[in-house]
Amino acid sequence: MAPRNVFYAQSGGVTAVINATACGVIETARGSRRLGKVYAGRNGIIGALREELIDTSKESKATIAGLRYTPAGAFGSCRYKLANADDNRREYERLIEVFKAHDIGYFFYNGGGDSQDTANKVAEFSQAQNFPITCIGIPKTVDNDLPLTDCCPGFGSVAKYVAVSTREAGLDVASMAESSTKVFVLEVMGRHAGWIAAAAGLAKDSRNDPPHIILFPEIPFVRKDFLKKVKETVNKVGHCVIVASEGAQYKDGTFVADAGAKDVFGHTQLGGVAPTLVDMVKAEHGFKCHWSVADYLQRAARHVASKVDVKQAYAVGKAAVEFALVGKNAVLPIIVRDKKSKRYRWHIEDAPLSKVANVEKPLPRSYITKDGYGITAKGRAYLAPLIEGEDHPPYRNGLPAYVSLKGSMVRKKLPSFEMDG
Amino acid sequence: MAPRNVFYAQSGGVTAVINATACGVIETARGSRRLGKVYAGRNGIIGALREELIDTSKESKATIAGLRYTPAGAFGSCRYKLANADDNRREYERLIEVFKAHDIGYFFYNGGGDSQDTANKVAEFSQAQNFPITCIGIPKTVDNDLPLTDCCPGFGSVAKYVAVSTREAGLDVASMAESSTKVFVLEVMGRHAGWIAAAAGLAKDSRNDPPHIILFPEIPFVRKDFLKKVKETVNKVGHCVIVASEGAQYKDGTFVADAGAKDVFGHTQLGGVAPTLVDMVKAEHGFKCHWSVADYLQRAARHVASKVDVKQAYAVGKAAVEFALVGKNAVLPIIVRDKKSKRYRWHIEDAPLSKVANVEKPLPRSYITKDGYGITAKGRAYLAPLIEGEDHPPYRNGLPAYVSLKGSMVRKKLPSFEMDG
Repeated sequence: MAPRNVFYAQSGGVTAVINATACGVIETARGSRRLGKVYAGRNGIIGALREELIDTSKESKATIAGLRYTPAGAFGSCRYKLANADDNRREYERLIEVFKAHDIGYFFYNGGGDSQDTANKVAEFSQAQNFPITCIGIPKTVDNDLPLTDCCPGFGSVAKYVAVSTREAGLDVASMAESSTKVFVLEVMGRHAGWIAAAAGLAKDSRNDPPHIILFPEIPFVRKDFLKKVKETVNKVGHCVIVASEGAQYKDGTFVADAGAKDVFGHTQLGGVAPTLVDMVKAEHGFKCHWSVADYLQRAARHVASKVDVKQAYAVGKAAVEFALVGKNAVLPIIVRDKKSKRYRWHIEDAPLSKVANVEKPLPRSYITKDGYGITAKGRAYLAPLIEGEDHPPYRNGLPAYVSLKGSMVRKKLPSFEMDG
Repeated sequence: MAPRNVFYAQSGGVTAVINATACGVIETARGSRRLGKVYAGRNGIIGALREELIDTSKESKATIAGLRYTPAGAFGSCRYKLANADDNRREYERLIEVFKAHDIGYFFYNGGGDSQDTANKVAEFSQAQNFPITCIGIPKTVDNDLPLTDCCPGFGSVAKYVAVSTREAGLDVASMAESSTKVFVLEVMGRHAGWIAAAAGLAKDSRNDPPHIILFPEIPFVRKDFLKKVKETVNKVGHCVIVASEGAQYKDGTFVADAGAKDVFGHTQLGGVAPTLVDMVKAEHGFKCHWSVADYLQRAARHVASKVDVKQAYAVGKAAVEFALVGKNAVLPIIVRDKKSKRYRWHIEDAPLSKVANVEKPLPRSYITKDGYGITAKGRAYLAPLIEGEDHPPYRNGLPAYVSLKGSMVRKKLPSFEMDG
């Protein structure tokens, strides 16, 4: 029997290291005679529905190796969640038609919780249809909110970016505080969980180091208490560095960012949590403030990636292919921390997709200090190893020499398809 | 005659490499028997007025060497401009008292245009008073707006940060554009001049690369034209990356950032140019947008500093001391580009302080494309060498191992002094 082809796709918000996972998948698949070509979905599952398949066999060895140090999704990602098969039979049937047309026997889906749900649905549907395809999820998310796995590839690098930026901006505001800026606010990602904001806490080596205040979505925001803490910090340290989750919220669930003023038409103003907090601090204390919103910069920052994260991202891609080769199905590789080792050690195991899909792992309360504004020793012990090591990309003309693909498309064999979404 | 002591201070907004200049000053001064100790002003000129002098001779060789890779102002900076001596005689007299009390014969002031003005005033006043002190300015500013010098230490590193971030975020939005974010806006510094925004243009290697639109303070913002360009770019490329100077402005001088809505009390809302542009794009085209405000992150980002910039920052510190030792006065070191060399080469010369103080160098129109949204080949030729080379700081536990000072203060000898500012 001729080896069957592999479908790989990237899904959801991209990261600094998701292409390292792609590199792990493709290099490992290329090394096996039992697998055919790796076709990558153009823009995730959308590429499968539209029969837009990138033929990775046309890419050079050097380009594929370069994916290891190239951020974002080289094949395009998507925000597209398949509905249940009962409500949306035609999309599932279309997937199977495309898989059949291109002799695809392996489905690798690289994403967060929603994507693992998609991978699981594809596995269930194809089993019910008796279509032989091996479905393997591959974890990825800067949010670090997947269950079972100790951490998620993508998180370590954003954590490192946030910790480094907090340290650097903290030195800046400390320099300026005597006669100018006294308060600095950095807004970071994390709509539902405070993992990323927590990582800023790694910048603090001693008591008066930044960050002085971290705002987590998990801890209800109390304006009066926050403003008091800012004042106390400025009095004691001379300045105050605040790292705020975009999802920081009041007890009733209103986002701090949404609680700002309305415009003349009654629309809530754009803003984000950083400028909203700065507005409060200025109004109450009159301190000069500066603020940053990291947004995409934080998750795309391959130039300051964590070496541990890059290794883990590659390893889950490699493991996914190895699982498929030994006949596992409807699973995903997870990262397991060796609890007994004093030094940080980890290895890969597998877990059932059904247990990962649509479950969010919150930041444990025990990682957050009692006052709600910092991280505990326990939180630090969890986070610190994940930002270990540097993995500088190559540079050319002063800029990271990220690779780009030829992106040769596989010739279509089917009529075009109208998506529902 | 015993060697006289040196006063060094940092002034204005700090940079990723101003401490590399301090390192150049201190290491060079330590190497000369003709100079005494280097006293650093705590928080710039304020430290001189208050007689708050940090004794750098108490710092180890390793700590001083570590300043080369530590961002921000290790001694504290200030935003404090001395008034003219006619209006403010007591502050100038106080400076001379402090210099006398501590046998200071050399005054090195490390800053931008305002600071060179201060250095020049101190030189003029002390000459008029027959107080023998050598005054040397040392250039520093991320804004790159000092005249005479080819570039300003601090600019190359912020330029590199902005170009790298634009490339990285550009890959991110390209990955997401098919089913999610189509427009990304990065707000960068530059209230009066577009040098920093221009540097983003270095990320563009080919026609469709980001940035697709750069907004310069020098080019009047026209909303209709901008929105048309965004639409055309999304249609052609699939997404659009915009880099906006914080100082982007309408023809009448109104900042784009200030033209947003008022709150219910009639106050202009906080915001910045990035969210304001996003508001426009969403309202007009309905595209999903993301935005970042780099703020302090860009100028503190020593982790991605330009090697050329670090070398130049060190070189101007070293040259300042050498100028003093050969008897130059009321000058500053400037960076001169060798126009005849095809490869980028530079050397240091001196220029009179009086010609630098309070003069701003705008971004030449010839560096900006005809349509006002990009940089020309000429602009690129000027900018490209300034971001060349990497100078990674050492890391410890996953974070840059920046140094901090003991900061031993010199014992005060004078009564305390009430500042005017």
